[in-house]
Amino acid sequence: MATLYSTHCRSYSPLTPSPSPSPSSYSSYCSSSSSSSKLGHVAVSSSASKRFLAAKLSVLSQNQNVARMQDGAVATAVTPIENDYSFKKLKSGLLSVPSTDECKDAVGFDINENGSTVSITVVGASGDLAKKKIFPALFALYYEGCLPKHFTVFGYARSKMTDAELRTMVSKTLTCRIDKRENCGEKMEQFLERCFYHSGQYDSQENFAELDKKLKEHEGRKVSNRLFYLSVPPNVFIDAVRCASLSASAGNGWTRVIVEKPFGRDSESSAALTKGLKQYLDEDQIFRIDHYLGKELVENLSVLRFSNLIFEPLWSRQYIRNVQFIFSEDFGTEGRGGYFDNYGIIRDIMQNHLLQILALFAMETPVTLDAEDIRNEKVKVLRSMRPLELENMVIGQYKSHTKGGVTYPAYTDDKTVPKDSLTPTFAAAALFIDNARWDGVPFLMKAGKALHNKKAEIRVQFRHVPGNLYNRNIGTDLDRATNELVIRVQPDEAIYLKINNKVPGLGMKLDRSNLNLHYAARYSKEIPDAYERLLLDAIEGERRLFIRSDELDAAWSLFTPVLKELEEKRIIPEYYPYGSRGPVGAHYLAARYKVRWGDVSVEQ
Amino acid sequence: MATLYSTHCRSYSPLTPSPSPSPSSYSSYCSSSSSSSKLGHVAVSSSASKRFLAAKLSVLSQNQNVARMQDGAVATAVTPIENDYSFKKLKSGLLSVPSTDECKDAVGFDINENGSTVSITVVGASGDLAKKKIFPALFALYYEGCLPKHFTVFGYARSKMTDAELRTMVSKTLTCRIDKRENCGEKMEQFLERCFYHSGQYDSQENFAELDKKLKEHEGRKVSNRLFYLSVPPNVFIDAVRCASLSASAGNGWTRVIVEKPFGRDSESSAALTKGLKQYLDEDQIFRIDHYLGKELVENLSVLRFSNLIFEPLWSRQYIRNVQFIFSEDFGTEGRGGYFDNYGIIRDIMQNHLLQILALFAMETPVTLDAEDIRNEKVKVLRSMRPLELENMVIGQYKSHTKGGVTYPAYTDDKTVPKDSLTPTFAAAALFIDNARWDGVPFLMKAGKALHNKKAEIRVQFRHVPGNLYNRNIGTDLDRATNELVIRVQPDEAIYLKINNKVPGLGMKLDRSNLNLHYAARYSKEIPDAYERLLLDAIEGERRLFIRSDELDAAWSLFTPVLKELEEKRIIPEYYPYGSRGPVGAHYLAARYKVRWGDVSVEQ
Repeated sequence: MATLYSTHCRSYSPLTPSPSPSPSSYSSYCSSSSSSSKLGHVAVSSSASKRFLAAKLSVLSQNQNVARMQDGAVATAVTPIENDYSFKKLKSGLLSVPSTDECKDAVGFDINENGSTVSITVVGASGDLAKKKIFPALFALYYEGCLPKHFTVFGYARSKMTDAELRTMVSKTLTCRIDKRENCGEKMEQFLERCFYHSGQYDSQENFAELDKKLKEHEGRKVSNRLFYLSVPPNVFIDAVRCASLSASAGNGWTRVIVEKPFGRDSESSAALTKGLKQYLDEDQIFRIDHYLGKELVENLSVLRFSNLIFEPLWSRQYIRNVQFIFSEDFGTEGRGGYFDNYGIIRDIMQNHLLQILALFAMETPVTLDAEDIRNEKVKVLRSMRPLELENMVIGQYKSHTKGGVTYPAYTDDKTVPKDSLTPTFAAAALFIDNARWDGVPFLMKAGKALHNKKAEIRVQFRHVPGNLYNRNIGTDLDRATNELVIRVQPDEAIYLKINNKVPGLGMKLDRSNLNLHYAARYSKEIPDAYERLLLDAIEGERRLFIRSDELDAAWSLFTPVLKELEEKRIIPEYYPYGSRGPVGAHYLAARYKVRWGDVSVEQ
Repeated sequence: MATLYSTHCRSYSPLTPSPSPSPSSYSSYCSSSSSSSKLGHVAVSSSASKRFLAAKLSVLSQNQNVARMQDGAVATAVTPIENDYSFKKLKSGLLSVPSTDECKDAVGFDINENGSTVSITVVGASGDLAKKKIFPALFALYYEGCLPKHFTVFGYARSKMTDAELRTMVSKTLTCRIDKRENCGEKMEQFLERCFYHSGQYDSQENFAELDKKLKEHEGRKVSNRLFYLSVPPNVFIDAVRCASLSASAGNGWTRVIVEKPFGRDSESSAALTKGLKQYLDEDQIFRIDHYLGKELVENLSVLRFSNLIFEPLWSRQYIRNVQFIFSEDFGTEGRGGYFDNYGIIRDIMQNHLLQILALFAMETPVTLDAEDIRNEKVKVLRSMRPLELENMVIGQYKSHTKGGVTYPAYTDDKTVPKDSLTPTFAAAALFIDNARWDGVPFLMKAGKALHNKKAEIRVQFRHVPGNLYNRNIGTDLDRATNELVIRVQPDEAIYLKINNKVPGLGMKLDRSNLNLHYAARYSKEIPDAYERLLLDAIEGERRLFIRSDELDAAWSLFTPVLKELEEKRIIPEYYPYGSRGPVGAHYLAARYKVRWGDVSVEQ
């Protein structure tokens, strides 16, 4: 559920000036009952805002109610408005209201509002992520009309560059998601005109103060909200946050910071990072991105589970035999292994992306779809899990392989990787959730680079049919006759449910056929990139898809012991050929728990 | 499960001659444990056989064990054989055994066996059903290698015709199911060479005795099994059975008779028919065809239910809101209403086809897939049902309608229909099963002629999601957001499951998408006609898809009271235009039970 974010909910009365105008950064519902739950939240924003800047109340819009709280914080007392209901309906995507505009449903705020502006600063603007993902996502949001009327995009990095040079750089990676979209070139021009560049060091308050000055020029006298996307190496995270916070926070609007993994290497370094960030930011200013949570089919996971009765009785140990989370890439580090080698596949994929999906998959029903309710349930699942043990883990590293006359390199052939590196490029793990719903159900994960295909999927294998009347039609391998639900996250998004079916004909032969929902066949619309959703959510203040610090702690506590053990004991990975299906050990690990990897069967 | 029918199970020892060689006509399993359960059956066969003919044991094959029963009947004591297991495995369509031959899976007997012959007599050979369905089905079975090595097809009817004329007549409707099949013409020649004709009255023992003589010529000294397909009007059923039984029963093999609806017009006439048939036949010689039971997706219903765990918890009042059985034809009686007018749509479609599917759908899990176990469960369901009441029924009759310049006739415009006929050409009904599984769940039926489309389907509508987190994304009509399983029996066979899904995009809009199994896309093989399956089953002695007399009684007792009331009160049908969706009354009937017909929604 995208947050309802209406101008009616977030503006203030100029009649009750306040030292803390940093607004309640989001309000999911414009109802008076929900306003009370926001009070604590506003109090936090308030304390945060004290560290930043003083109020500039003169620019605030008219005719709003503000309640002053005991601690001097300001709560927005919501005035229910007449068209609120219809707005909500439109927003929530009422089935009977056909929407032609991508953003009608997605954006809670009034994008034509004149009173405020959003400045988005991409810190580390010349990096790969910025070029490949962040600027294109911002452009897509702009094209779709999802950005506020007044917005500015600033690139910030150490290299010297003019605005024009930044625009040239950015323009090379911008595409309209569908090539033949209308006015794409024109829109691109308009977008680039709002992109600027400021060169500076990541640890220089002075440079950030210069940025602040430029931002102010663009913001004018409007309520100014600022979003910083930290696309920089982890070792400069804290410096950049310090400088941004102290020298370039929003004057009278919100300031939010998006950070992306790695969030440390283990429990301790993650805790240190969190502590560092919290010196300068409140928890609700920190948007920890896990871009897998922005993927369409991961978003759909909760919809599938909670809006379809047919899955309700099935979603537990009683019917589910095991669950598999599978990630594979068909390429290696290819000369960019320097960063990777310090982390390895477990930290790079498993401990975050796959574990996040697992938590969403396995959580109990949240009270509501609000961010805190969902994150509370996710934390509960993570805290119910047994820390991973070495015996429940298999690690691998790809080795060189020659196929069809082409020689593919080993991981350690990568010049940025130490020759004796033991860093896993593949890992498989069996995890367990010790709660009433999942006791005894193996949750298997598998992630690897340089494998035979590129894919991310969730596989739910159901139990055998008790007293199956058709056992003799199935043969000796009853596992092949169980139902399986597959959610293919990428590529070629699909959901399919394997069922046993009678093969048409005069005999009684069964096969497993798929009840299939293939996205490309069903939906003509292209699927937005995960970064679009996440950037939009950050602008809206919707935290559902971002990771809270206690989630992060819980996630690390599951993986830290085994990661330490792997490194301390210098466990040798199982070598597998580049382009293969990975180490055989993964099968033995699965077999120990009577699991068969679903992605290796002939039918898939 | 097709019955295992091995020569090892049905032959006799010549060492123990018996006055009753009519063999245990089928044996599902060649195991000693099952032989005991056949004793009673054999006793029945024995008593039946007394009415037929004396033994001709000399032709029987060697080396068999026969146990003489107390009443003088013969039981086949089964000798377990070594290759029995492998045979069974092959037979039951073991997934790991790829079969290229349609019939490897389907035929239980050894089609190369030399010791026996089957004579198939189509009584009423010049009729429409015979030409359109029975001969083509026999040819398809022959083409697929499903008929025994020695077989003969006899046409029997009143018209004078030579063998050659019959062959010409038959050849016009024979097709290879796939046009470009290999050797189709050659096979057709071979098949036609085995087709003969005998002209005679249906009530003439003398004429049947002549037939018997001809049959014997073809059978030679082999064990001769005889199958009579009564494709004649109901008023000559008994006569034909009497004559066939008394004058043309098999000498030393089995004699079976296939009869097709109508099985009476109500409980009384049906009971009279059964009584009449049983004067000359035992219950296990009577094969009451309901060709809907031979349809691929009806066959698959039990596979879906009983071999897929995911459906197991769902199949009850706890999750299912209602079930719908829908039959529609897009044409009227078109000058052939004479027969129909005497029966009406309720007797023609509902009381048999739809009710049979309902019973299969709703029955408890049978002990095994054997015919008697399944039929026992079906009878239990029928006996748990409340007799239909007039207030739970809507009847309609189509009236003339002009569309696009074409005028379509009213039912009563059919010259073979009385002008004042009140016979329903459409009916809708709400039925209830008063047992623990289905208490309170409406089972709705709808059947009609001259509607806007041609279709037969089963729709299972699931309940609302309790405490649905996504209710506000769904809008006011929660019924539209429930899951639905659709089994489309014809045309264009398919199974699909409607689920709620997130529409890809930045917002949170839900839609109902289908998890789809479209047969044409999945299975390249054409689907055999229902008559092929049923004829083969009758030859094999597999009774699972035929209706037992107690089922028939139970079915009639549900419909007879309301049929009488309709006729006694001369209830006027609701008139609906030819080509329309039928009477509006059907919607009000459904609405009374909070049901919405699934076939009229936009999405379907």
